[in-house]
Amino acid sequence: MDSEAVKQQKAQVGREAVKFVTDGMVVGIGSGSTMWYMVEELGKLVQNGLNIVGVPTSQYTKKHAEDLGITMKNVDEVDQIDLTIDGADQIDENYQGIKGGGASHLMEKIVAINSKKNMWIVDETKMVKTLNYPVPLEVIPYGSKQLEKKLEKMGLNPKLRLDEQHQPVQTDSANYIIDLYIEHLDNPKDLATKLDSIVGIVEHGLFLDLANTIIIQHEDGPQIIQAR
Amino acid sequence: MDSEAVKQQKAQVGREAVKFVTDGMVVGIGSGSTMWYMVEELGKLVQNGLNIVGVPTSQYTKKHAEDLGITMKNVDEVDQIDLTIDGADQIDENYQGIKGGGASHLMEKIVAINSKKNMWIVDETKMVKTLNYPVPLEVIPYGSKQLEKKLEKMGLNPKLRLDEQHQPVQTDSANYIIDLYIEHLDNPKDLATKLDSIVGIVEHGLFLDLANTIIIQHEDGPQIIQAR
Repeated sequence: MDSEAVKQQKAQVGREAVKFVTDGMVVGIGSGSTMWYMVEELGKLVQNGLNIVGVPTSQYTKKHAEDLGITMKNVDEVDQIDLTIDGADQIDENYQGIKGGGASHLMEKIVAINSKKNMWIVDETKMVKTLNYPVPLEVIPYGSKQLEKKLEKMGLNPKLRLDEQHQPVQTDSANYIIDLYIEHLDNPKDLATKLDSIVGIVEHGLFLDLANTIIIQHEDGPQIIQAR
Repeated sequence: MDSEAVKQQKAQVGREAVKFVTDGMVVGIGSGSTMWYMVEELGKLVQNGLNIVGVPTSQYTKKHAEDLGITMKNVDEVDQIDLTIDGADQIDENYQGIKGGGASHLMEKIVAINSKKNMWIVDETKMVKTLNYPVPLEVIPYGSKQLEKKLEKMGLNPKLRLDEQHQPVQTDSANYIIDLYIEHLDNPKDLATKLDSIVGIVEHGLFLDLANTIIIQHEDGPQIIQAR
């Protein structure tokens, strides 16, 4: 559970983020705990008359937003998404990110690449010089053990993600997650290209050249970065 | 239905293919109509004492092989596959192939890349100078309409594959199939690299640098090509 002080910080960042949302926009809505507060703030604006359409990145987000009265459509029912607001697990000094700690990075990436602009909201602990967070891969179950052996041989330190019952975590698409425990990811683009070509990997959690705006939650208030 | 003459040709090619299977092998078993005859021939050998383990590329193949008494394991239950025998939709003069007309190319490719050797069996109409068969893509349903628009803009002439009820064809992994109608695919490797990097494409049906042996069914008997 977040402490009261952290809750207030997250709510403040959420209010900062929704200032970028204007009437008539199609807004991609991310997943995760920081997002929860943003969705609440967005709900308040909608209840006060803001006219937007939301596009979800997970089943959980969809329900939360709909409960607050936000009109939700899927990514194929809109022309284009104007702005997607999402969290990130880690962001490096070039504003390249890793997502997928919550096993939703496939849907999140599909929404992100269909957005004109992407905003990430994170607390300051997520900002690092070099990425060292596990890189999640959504993988096809058939052949996933062979894939793990191959990634091991490549020195990528893979581990199948298990749930509390020691069963493979399943994504919304009924796939598995393999996390790559890489200590210093100096060149995320090189890794992304390698992973793209490997059969059985549906999508990796490297989100490169995507973030336009980053809002960082500090103890003393939000910091806004224009990344690209 | 095949004519009696064609049936005999296919059975003859099947007998030729199973000559490459020796005692103790782990054998990947492909899908499709030509494969049906090969599986029948393989079943006869097993009933006569050949000791092999089969690895399926589709639910259909698994059942057919098991019904004939072939021990089947999935790709993660074996160390490595010694030889995979499969069909192909089209093969060019450099022995690069397209598969996925039957919507099974994801599982087929997972089996193929985990095989020491790959053999393809085709009739002579499948052999062409330049590939011009639709290239199938297995795609994530969420965002598939946006993906189709993107592929259209890239000039790749995409069409979502529909069933007889005009509903999207679903793969064994509950994904959709988009076929790219490309008239002359001069550089399949370039296209493969492009497709690898596109979010939402689980796997494409280009099978490059994979076929070691090709058996071509001609009216006057099988022709064996050592491709690589």
